[in-house]
Amino acid sequence: MTTTSLAKEKLHVINTHVHNIDGIAKVTGRATYSFDVKLPGMLYGKILRSPHPHAKIINIDASKALALHGVKAVVTGKDTLGVKQGIWRRYSELCDEQILPVEKVRYIGEPVAAVAAITEEIAEAALDLIEVEYEVLEGVYEPYEAMKKEAPEIHEGVERNINVTRHIEWGDVETGFEQADYIREDHFFCGGQAHMCMETRSAVASYTPEGKLTIYHSNQSAYYMQALMAGVLGMKEGNVRVIAQYVGGGFGGKFELDGAIFTSCILSMKLHRPVKVIYTREEDFIATKRRTPMHYWVRTGIKKDGTFCAREARVVSNGGAYTGMGATALYLTGFFHSFPYRWENYRYDGYRVYTNTLPSTSMRGFGAPQAMFCSEQQLEWIAADLGLDPIEMRRKNGHYAGYEVPGQAFIASCGLDEAFTVMKEWIAKKGKLPANRGIGFSAAGFMSGGIFNWFDTPYSFSSAVVTINQDATVELHIGATEIGQGSNTTMAIIAAETLGVKVEDIKVHSGDTDHCPADLGAWGSRQTLMTGNATKRACEDAKAQLLEFAYAKMGLNIVYDLDIKDRWVHIVARPERGMPFDELVTIALRGKDGQRIIGRGFYTPHRKGMISPAYSYMLQGVEVDIDPETGKIELLDSLTAHDCGQPINHLGLIGQLEGAFSMAAGYGYLEYMPYEDGKLMNPNLVDYKMIRATEMPETPIHDIDTYEPEGPYGAKEAGEGLTNPTAAAIGNAIFHALGVQMKECPIRPHMIVDALKEKAEKEKAGK
Amino acid sequence: MTTTSLAKEKLHVINTHVHNIDGIAKVTGRATYSFDVKLPGMLYGKILRSPHPHAKIINIDASKALALHGVKAVVTGKDTLGVKQGIWRRYSELCDEQILPVEKVRYIGEPVAAVAAITEEIAEAALDLIEVEYEVLEGVYEPYEAMKKEAPEIHEGVERNINVTRHIEWGDVETGFEQADYIREDHFFCGGQAHMCMETRSAVASYTPEGKLTIYHSNQSAYYMQALMAGVLGMKEGNVRVIAQYVGGGFGGKFELDGAIFTSCILSMKLHRPVKVIYTREEDFIATKRRTPMHYWVRTGIKKDGTFCAREARVVSNGGAYTGMGATALYLTGFFHSFPYRWENYRYDGYRVYTNTLPSTSMRGFGAPQAMFCSEQQLEWIAADLGLDPIEMRRKNGHYAGYEVPGQAFIASCGLDEAFTVMKEWIAKKGKLPANRGIGFSAAGFMSGGIFNWFDTPYSFSSAVVTINQDATVELHIGATEIGQGSNTTMAIIAAETLGVKVEDIKVHSGDTDHCPADLGAWGSRQTLMTGNATKRACEDAKAQLLEFAYAKMGLNIVYDLDIKDRWVHIVARPERGMPFDELVTIALRGKDGQRIIGRGFYTPHRKGMISPAYSYMLQGVEVDIDPETGKIELLDSLTAHDCGQPINHLGLIGQLEGAFSMAAGYGYLEYMPYEDGKLMNPNLVDYKMIRATEMPETPIHDIDTYEPEGPYGAKEAGEGLTNPTAAAIGNAIFHALGVQMKECPIRPHMIVDALKEKAEKEKAGK
Repeated sequence: MTTTSLAKEKLHVINTHVHNIDGIAKVTGRATYSFDVKLPGMLYGKILRSPHPHAKIINIDASKALALHGVKAVVTGKDTLGVKQGIWRRYSELCDEQILPVEKVRYIGEPVAAVAAITEEIAEAALDLIEVEYEVLEGVYEPYEAMKKEAPEIHEGVERNINVTRHIEWGDVETGFEQADYIREDHFFCGGQAHMCMETRSAVASYTPEGKLTIYHSNQSAYYMQALMAGVLGMKEGNVRVIAQYVGGGFGGKFELDGAIFTSCILSMKLHRPVKVIYTREEDFIATKRRTPMHYWVRTGIKKDGTFCAREARVVSNGGAYTGMGATALYLTGFFHSFPYRWENYRYDGYRVYTNTLPSTSMRGFGAPQAMFCSEQQLEWIAADLGLDPIEMRRKNGHYAGYEVPGQAFIASCGLDEAFTVMKEWIAKKGKLPANRGIGFSAAGFMSGGIFNWFDTPYSFSSAVVTINQDATVELHIGATEIGQGSNTTMAIIAAETLGVKVEDIKVHSGDTDHCPADLGAWGSRQTLMTGNATKRACEDAKAQLLEFAYAKMGLNIVYDLDIKDRWVHIVARPERGMPFDELVTIALRGKDGQRIIGRGFYTPHRKGMISPAYSYMLQGVEVDIDPETGKIELLDSLTAHDCGQPINHLGLIGQLEGAFSMAAGYGYLEYMPYEDGKLMNPNLVDYKMIRATEMPETPIHDIDTYEPEGPYGAKEAGEGLTNPTAAAIGNAIFHALGVQMKECPIRPHMIVDALKEKAEKEKAGK
Repeated sequence: MTTTSLAKEKLHVINTHVHNIDGIAKVTGRATYSFDVKLPGMLYGKILRSPHPHAKIINIDASKALALHGVKAVVTGKDTLGVKQGIWRRYSELCDEQILPVEKVRYIGEPVAAVAAITEEIAEAALDLIEVEYEVLEGVYEPYEAMKKEAPEIHEGVERNINVTRHIEWGDVETGFEQADYIREDHFFCGGQAHMCMETRSAVASYTPEGKLTIYHSNQSAYYMQALMAGVLGMKEGNVRVIAQYVGGGFGGKFELDGAIFTSCILSMKLHRPVKVIYTREEDFIATKRRTPMHYWVRTGIKKDGTFCAREARVVSNGGAYTGMGATALYLTGFFHSFPYRWENYRYDGYRVYTNTLPSTSMRGFGAPQAMFCSEQQLEWIAADLGLDPIEMRRKNGHYAGYEVPGQAFIASCGLDEAFTVMKEWIAKKGKLPANRGIGFSAAGFMSGGIFNWFDTPYSFSSAVVTINQDATVELHIGATEIGQGSNTTMAIIAAETLGVKVEDIKVHSGDTDHCPADLGAWGSRQTLMTGNATKRACEDAKAQLLEFAYAKMGLNIVYDLDIKDRWVHIVARPERGMPFDELVTIALRGKDGQRIIGRGFYTPHRKGMISPAYSYMLQGVEVDIDPETGKIELLDSLTAHDCGQPINHLGLIGQLEGAFSMAAGYGYLEYMPYEDGKLMNPNLVDYKMIRATEMPETPIHDIDTYEPEGPYGAKEAGEGLTNPTAAAIGNAIFHALGVQMKECPIRPHMIVDALKEKAEKEKAGK
C-alpha cells in the first residue's frame, strides 16, 4: 500500500528503542504506588472474610471489636446501600455482587465486615473479635454439579445456577460435518489462574464532609472505578476522584470493584478520615478473582486434504460466585476458539455456571488461552491422524487480510501466513531431536480493544488532550491507565511522532479522573489502538493549529508542504529550510495572545463489527524436554512470531511478549488452583508455582510487520494475544516428544507419568 | 446603566452568602499543606544562615557536618549555577539575588549553606559543624547612610547603593504650588512589617534522575515558581512541576523564590531524593522579606476653598539587600499617594536604596499603606489648619467614574462619593466624644491586578479551562492560587453563575502547573478580576457549545431566547418551559460522540493604562481611646465603606475586609521591626506584636455597590485595598483625640506620650 510505505518512510520516533519513561522511577524506588500513599490522620483497614463457601449471615456483633483500643469503626453490608453491582452495567441481571454482602456469603474469603483502626495490627486483631453468626448452607463447587436440579441455589431465581449463556453460529454446522472426511471430538479442562500482580489490591480512600471522595487505587481503569464507586455509594461521579498511582500489574483483575477500594471508601465515609486497605498475598489469592476454569468439548470435521469443514464447541465454565467480566470471557472464548481459521461452519455454546468458589473473570487472553489449548492441540492430533503437515494444514485455512469472520469481524491486516513460514523454518532448523524432547507450536489471534459498550459509558472510548507549553514541552492528558505495560511510553512516542518532537518533550498524565479525560482503561489490549488514536488525533489537531502560524510566516499554503520532525519545522521538499519547533511555539503563543495551543482527539470504534476494530496474530513455538520418570517439563527454547501491525516501541514490544510468554507458560504447566470443598489449597507463593527467571528459555522474537489501517501508525495489539497459544504449544511439544495427548491444563507431571503408563499399557495390550 | 441592571436582575449565585468551598477541609484539619507532604525516602533540610550583615565568604568547610551520621549532603552557592535571579525578569539589572550566594552575604539570616539529613534534628545539629570563614565587611542599615559617598558598596557597581528610582509626574507642579493659598510639607517614616503568614515558608522538592523536578510549595503563584526555578536551575519550565498545596497565607511575601524552595531543590537534585525544608517562625521573620520601610516627604498646595492644586512627594525606601518586588512597590507607593484625588499637578520621586538588612518587597497594599499614612494625615491636618470639613474637602477633589489619572489610569467605576456620605453619617451619629477619645478616617483606592509585564511572561495573564462531565458536574482548571483569600470559591461562584448551575457542581483545580493553565497568581488583587474574567469567558464558551444542542432541540434560534439558571435550561420568556441541565449535557455528549464539552477563556488587560484595569475605593473609620499616661491605644469601633464593584461573595467580602483591617491596624500601631546593626531584635511572636482577636473592635461594613465594566459581573478588588487607609485613620483619630500629629508608623505608645509632653511644653511656652 503506497500510504503505508510513505508513512513508514517518514517515521522518526515510532518503532525505535525507547526505554519506558517511568523506568528510572521504578528501578530507583521513586515510583509511588497506592501502597505508598500516606495521608494525615490515616487509618488502616482490614477485612473479615467468610470461612464458609455458602452461608446466610444471621447476625454480626462487632461490640467487642469496637471496644478494642485503637479501633475506630466496623462496617458490614448494613452500612452500605446494598447495591448489587457489576461491570456489565448495561444489564442489571449481570450486576449481582455486593462487595460487602448483606444477606449471604457465596465463597470462602468473601468480605463480611471491615475494621478501621489506628494501626494495621490492631485492625487485624479486631477481626478476631467480630462475632458473626452464620447459617451454613450447602455449597456446590463444580459447574456440572451446580447445574443439577437438586443443587443449592446460589443466586435467588437463577435456574440451575446458569449465570450466562452465549451462542455463536455461522454457516451450517450439520452440513459441514457431512462434508468432512474425518471428525474428531475431545473433552478438555482448563483450570483457573491467579492474576498474581506484583502489587496486591490496595486502596486509600479519603472522604471529606463536603461530600467529596478521593481514592488512590491500584487499578486498570480509573474511570471505571469512579463510575462504579459513584454507583454503589449513590454519589455523583464528579464527586468521586480516583487516582491510579503507579500500578503494579493488572492482567484483567483490576478493572472491577474490589474489597480494598470498597471497604476503604465505606470506612472513610463513616469516619471522615482517610483509610488504607492493602491486601495480603493470601487475600489476593483467595478473594480477588481468577481466570475462568472451563470444560471444553470440541468436535471438528476436516477433509482429507486438510480443508476445515466444521467445528462445534461447547463450554461449561466455573463462574464462581459472581459474574464480573465472566459474560465477556464466555463470549470471547467461543469467538477466539475459531481463530485464526476460516471455518465456514461454526457453532459455539457457552454456559457460565455459578458455584461457591472464587468468582472467575477476565485475565490476560480473556478466554482465548483456554480456547487455544483445546483447539490447537486437537488440530495437531488431527494433522497427525491424517498425516498432514500441521503448519500447511493450518496455513491453508488461515485468516488473511480482507477476510470477514461471518457476521463478527473484519480482518484488515494479517501477518499469519508469514508467521507460519517463520515457524516452519525454525522447526526445520531444529532437525532431529533427542529422546523425550519435542517441539510444539500453536497459532492464535487476538483483539485490539473491545467494541460493545457493556459498561454503558456515555463517553468516547478514548480521549486525549494535548497542551503545548511555551518552552515546547508538551502536556499530554489521557485517561488510559499505565499498569506497567508501558502505555504512557507508547502514547509519548505517538505524540512525539505526530507533533514532530522528541519523546522527552512529552509529559504524560494519566489515571487521575479529575485531570484526565475519560477512557475505558487498560483491558482487552485496547489502549495502543484506541488511546493511541485519540492521542494521535489530539496531536494532529494541535499541530494543525501550530502550522497555521508556520504557513503564515513561511508563505506556503499547499497541503503537506510544511512538516515538523525532530523539533524542526520545515518545508518538506527542502528540509533544510525551516525554523526550530520552539520558535514556532513562541510565534503561535504571541498570535494567540498568550493562550497555549490545546489539541483534542478522541476515538470510539464505528462500523468495525461485533468484537474489535483490529486483530493481531501470533505463533508460539516451544522446545521442551520431559523427564519420563517424573513428568517434569523443562522449556529449552522458543520462538515467538507476532504480527502486531506497526510496532510503536521495539523495546516495549519485547517486554510485553516476554511477559506474555512467561505468564502463558506458567498457565500451561505450572499454575494450578486446587479447591477442596470451596477452599483454595495453595494461596501462597510457595505452593502456587509461577515460572521463575531460571526456568524461562531464550525468547527470540520474530516481529511480523503489517500495517493495521485502523490503528495509530498501523499499530495493533501486542502482549496479551501471546498468552493464547503457549499452553497448547507446550502440549503439542509433549505430544511430539512422547506421543501423549494432554487434555488438562496446567499440564502437571503426574499427568504425563500417568499418560505414559496408559500409553505403555495400551501398546502392550495392542501388541 | 441598562446593561448593569439587566445583568443584576439575572444573577442567581453572585453576591449570595457562599461559605468557602475549602472551609470544611480546613476546619476539620483535612487540608494538607506543603508541611504535610511526606514522600518515600524523604530527607529534611536545614539552612545555615549568615550571622553577619555584610561579609565575604572566604571558605566553607562542610567536612565535619558531612561526617555526622545521618547527614546526606551539604550544599553551598558553589553547588548552584550562581544565577542572579529576581522576579522582574524583564530587567536583568533588577535580578540581583543568588538565594545561596557564592561570594558574599548582604544581610543577617541570608542562606549560606544547606544540609539534608535523615531527620530535622540531625540537619539542625549539622549546621553547627559547618565551618564558614568570612571576611567581615562594614555594613550599612539606613538608606540615607547608604546613599553617602563613603558608604560601603553592597552590590558591585551600584552607585550610592541606589537600587531603583521611579518618577511620576503630570501637570505643572511649580505652577500648581503658585496657585495654592496654602502649602504644607511634612516628613514621615513608615516602618517595615512582617508578612506573618500562618504557614511559614515550606517546600518539598523531589528531583528524579530522568530530569524532572516536582515541588510542593507554599506560594502565591505556582507558575512564577515554575518559571523562576527553571531559570536558576537551567531547566525547561516543563520539566519543573510546582504544586501549591493549601497555602497558609501569602500577603505579597510568597511570589518570589525563597530559601525553602531553592535549597530543597538544590539538595534534591544533588541527592536524587525528596527533601523537605520548613522554616521556623524565626527564620520566617529574619530571612524572608518584609513590607518596605519608607521615608516620605510630602508637600501639598491647596486653595482656601479646599481645591487641591499640587502635590509633590519624595520617597527614600530601605530596600534591604535585594530588589525583589521593590521596584513595583516603589512605583505604586508614588502612584497611590495621589489617590483617590484629582491632583492636576503631581510629582513623585522615589529612591530605593540597598542596605544590609532583610530585603523589602511587596506586602498587602503594595506601597499604598505607606503612601496613605502620609497623605491622609497631612490632608487632615490641612483641613484643620484651613478650617475645612475634612470629608467635604476630600469629596470635592475625589475621583469619579470617567476620570483619567493623567497618563496613568482610567477610572471606569468609583463609589467614593457615596462612601464619603456613609462615613459622614457614621461620624455624625457618634456625636461628642469623651476626653482622650477620637474618631479618624482615611480614604484610599487600590488596583485590581497589574498591567505591566515585568515578569516577561509569554502567557496570557489568566486562563481557565472548564470541562463539563456527564453527570453535569464541572471541572474548572485555573492557574490562580488559593492562598486563603477564597479565590477558588470566587471562581466557583463565577463559573456557577455563568453556566447556570450550583456552586457545589463546580470542582476547582488550581495551583498545579502540570494540570492548570498559566496564571500570574495571587498578588496585586488581580485574581477576582483577571482569573474571574478568564473563568467567565471559559464558561461562556462552554455554555454556548451546550446551548447549540438546546436550540437544536427546542427549536428557537433568536439570540438570548434560551438561558440556563439553577440547573434549568429554559426559554427566557417562558421560564417554566425547558429541561434540566444534566439532560442537556447528556444530549450534547451524545451529539459529540462522547466528547465532553470543554470551554476556554483567557484574559490579559489591553488599553487600560499603565497600572491596572480597574480601581476600587475604600474609606476606613476608626474610633480610638488613648491612655494619655501610657500612650496605649485601644480600638473601640470602626466603619468600613468599600466599593469593590459588584461583590462576588458577600461572606468572602466580609472575611477579606476584616482581615485587611486587622492587618492594617497592626501596621498602624503595633507591628514594629526594630533593627540593631542589621539584626532584627524581635523575631518572635512574643516580642513582635500582632493584633489579637480581643483587640479588634466591631467591624461593620458598608458595601458600596458599583459596577466595574472591566470586571467579571462588575467585580473588582476587595481585601487588599483596605490595608491602605487604616494606619492614617488611627493617626487621624489620635489627632482628633489629643491634637498631636503622628509622623511615624507604627504609632507606638511612647510617641504619643512624647508628643503630648511636647504639646504641653509648647502650650506652656505659648502661654
